Parts: sequence; structure tokens; C-alpha cells
Amino acid sequence: MRIAVITFDGFNEIDSFVSFHILNRVDAAGWKAEITSPSGMVESRNGVRVFAQQPLEFANEADVVLFGSGSRTLEMVNDPAVMSRLKLDPERQLIGSQCSGALALWKLGLLQTLPVCTDFKTRPLLEAAGVPVLDQTFVASGNVASAGGCLSSPCLATWVICSLLDDAAAEAALDYVAPVGEREQFIAAALAAVQPFVSRKVIGANHS
Amino acid sequence: MRIAVITFDGFNEIDSFVSFHILNRVDAAGWKAEITSPSGMVESRNGVRVFAQQPLEFANEADVVLFGSGSRTLEMVNDPAVMSRLKLDPERQLIGSQCSGALALWKLGLLQTLPVCTDFKTRPLLEAAGVPVLDQTFVASGNVASAGGCLSSPCLATWVICSLLDDAAAEAALDYVAPVGEREQFIAAALAAVQPFVSRKVIGANHS
Repeated sequence: MRIAVITFDGFNEIDSFVSFHILNRVDAAGWKAEITSPSGMVESRNGVRVFAQQPLEFANEADVVLFGSGSRTLEMVNDPAVMSRLKLDPERQLIGSQCSGALALWKLGLLQTLPVCTDFKTRPLLEAAGVPVLDQTFVASGNVASAGGCLSSPCLATWVICSLLDDAAAEAALDYVAPVGEREQFIAAALAAVQPFVSRKVIGANHS
Repeated sequence: MRIAVITFDGFNEIDSFVSFHILNRVDAAGWKAEITSPSGMVESRNGVRVFAQQPLEFANEADVVLFGSGSRTLEMVNDPAVMSRLKLDPERQLIGSQCSGALALWKLGLLQTLPVCTDFKTRPLLEAAGVPVLDQTFVASGNVASAGGCLSSPCLATWVICSLLDDAAAEAALDYVAPVGEREQFIAAALAAVQPFVSRKVIGANHS
């Protein structure tokens, strides 16, 4: 499974790197999450400059595409020079978003009237566009998922792993990142948040 | 308050960026957390190349120094060319660590026989050196703190904010990053984990 974590200029460090890290903990052949950006280098909302690992077009061939969040997401999703480079397909890809990344799902026509989870700053923008926003951490409908609040990132990663592998693989990846002394509750909470939305997928079978 | 998040080659993305992000959410004049490294660019354990915002010597004048974790921490703390650049002082600085960052606290003589929190891979190294390791998320003794498990990072950030400002400032910063729908429990848990170890500090008064 190749996983694109889409990371724009102005990105939120937690929203890109937490799910990226957890997904890279998965011990399965070919699993790899990569920072994927419109330019060779992006700068975070707090001034950290990071080299992209993949160009934006990598998302089009990835098995999983996760949109991170950031202070410039609205500007990015309104820029045809950025968005025209994306040709995603929820029939063959898992597609998820974190916080303002939900704006990208909306712009790509992946939401229609599906409810989403997002942060409290993005919420009014989506509601103004007619998208229902939920007061919860995570939601998915089929192959499209969204999570709200920076530290909902473990749920997004858990959903990907449970959907493409199994609960045991998700538990093993979460075990590495759980706070010591809170392992059981942490893993149980992440699994409980996503399990209502998991159906085992056969994604990217044509790549393997 | 100037905050150095020490980030070595092989760094764990969660361990450097979660506390970095939360601390940069603090809305107080002069508060700034910066990625601080021995070289101008460092590469994470998952191959992300990041530019340092400050050289390692910045830690010596910072008010707060947090050691991130990573796959090469042991090698770094055993390298005199790296460690000789650090002149920290727990009398005038808050000093904390995340997971294998506890090895740096030990190497700098900041632990002696104080108990620490760390991850399960670093634990045997510290125990072999005679350092007691706790089965909990967070511990501090005076101005020296440690946290174990990647997602204990919010506790480390909360301890810094509660120690130097107050609980209300910590709540405000955590509010931005809490999972939607879990705000109250998330903030209460982070505060509860650190409050037994918080005494209000007067740090860096000579800078202000």
C-alpha cells in the first residue's frame, strides 16, 4: 500500500505527521506513507521547512490519500493550478482528511451531502457550502473519511489500517505510539471510534 | 519564552512535532518553540528531511529545552561532538524529554537516580544504567521532566505551559488540538497527568 499524506504550504505539523508516523509503523510488505506536496519544499504554519517525498501527482496512483490540514488549505483548494493535478477515485482509493483537509474533499466533489468531521475554524466554511458537520472525532462513508481536531489523527490512521489489513495490525501500530500506562484505553478508544465505519476493502489489488 | 525542541537525525516525527505545535499555540508575547538540531538539516526515521530553525547552541540560551526521540538518539548522546555543544542548567531552564530523549537527560547528569518515563525500547538501556523507569505517561522532579510513548507529547507541552503560565493557558492551547467531541476529557486528562508535578516557575526572568 502506498499512502500519500498531502501536505500544503502552511501545513499543521500534527495533522500531517501523526497519521504519517503511525502508518509507517505498519509492518506489512510495501506499506509506506509519504509526504506529498505541490512543490519540492513546503513550509509549515510554524515556519518549519520540509522537503516533499513525492510530488502531488503521486496521490493519483496511491492506494490511500490523506489530506492534512493547515493555515492555507482554503487558498490551495481554490487554486486550479494545484487542484487540477489531482485525479482521485474513491472507487479504487481510500481518501481521508484531517481538519481543514475536508475542504479538499468538498472541492473534489467527494462529499456532496455526506456529513464530515473537521475543526471548529473550518466548520462554518463547510456549513455555508451545505455540508453537514458532526460533533465527533471521526466519520467515514464507504471509502471517504474525515477526522476533526489535530489529535484525531490516530483515528484516521486506524481506519486506514483496519480497512486494508485488520484490527491486529492497527493495534500493533498504535502500540508504538500510545502513551505509556494508557496503552489499553488508547488503543480501545481509537478502534471504537472507527469500527462502525470499517468494512474490509480490497484496494489497489491491481498493483499487487 | 524561547523553547528548543531538540531534533536529531533519525527523529520520531510525533515526538518532535506534537509538543512543538502545541507550544506554538500559546498566545503569549515572545512564546516560540523552534526545531533545534546539530546540523542545518535533519532526516527523520521515515525519511523526511527538515531544516533546523536553530542550531544546537540555541538550547543553551533557551528558557525551555525538550529532547525529542528517534532511532539514533543513543548514538547522538554518545557523540562528544554533539553533546559538548550543550551547556544546560536545570536551575534556570525547564528541561524535558520524550521517549529516547531521556537518554540525553541521563547523559547530561540530570537524572542521577530520579525516576523517568520513556518508551519500552529505551527502558532497558536506562535500567541498565541504574535509572528507575516508571509505568506511567509523565513524571517531573523540579525543572526536569520526562514523558513516555509518542502521544504522551501533549503532557510534556502541558507541563511547560502550566509551569510557566497557568492552567487556563494550557487549556487554551490544548483546545486547538483536542479531538472534536472529546475536548473536555482530553484537556482534563492532560492536566491531571501533569498537575502533581507542577510548581509555578520563575524561569528566564533575566531575559524579560
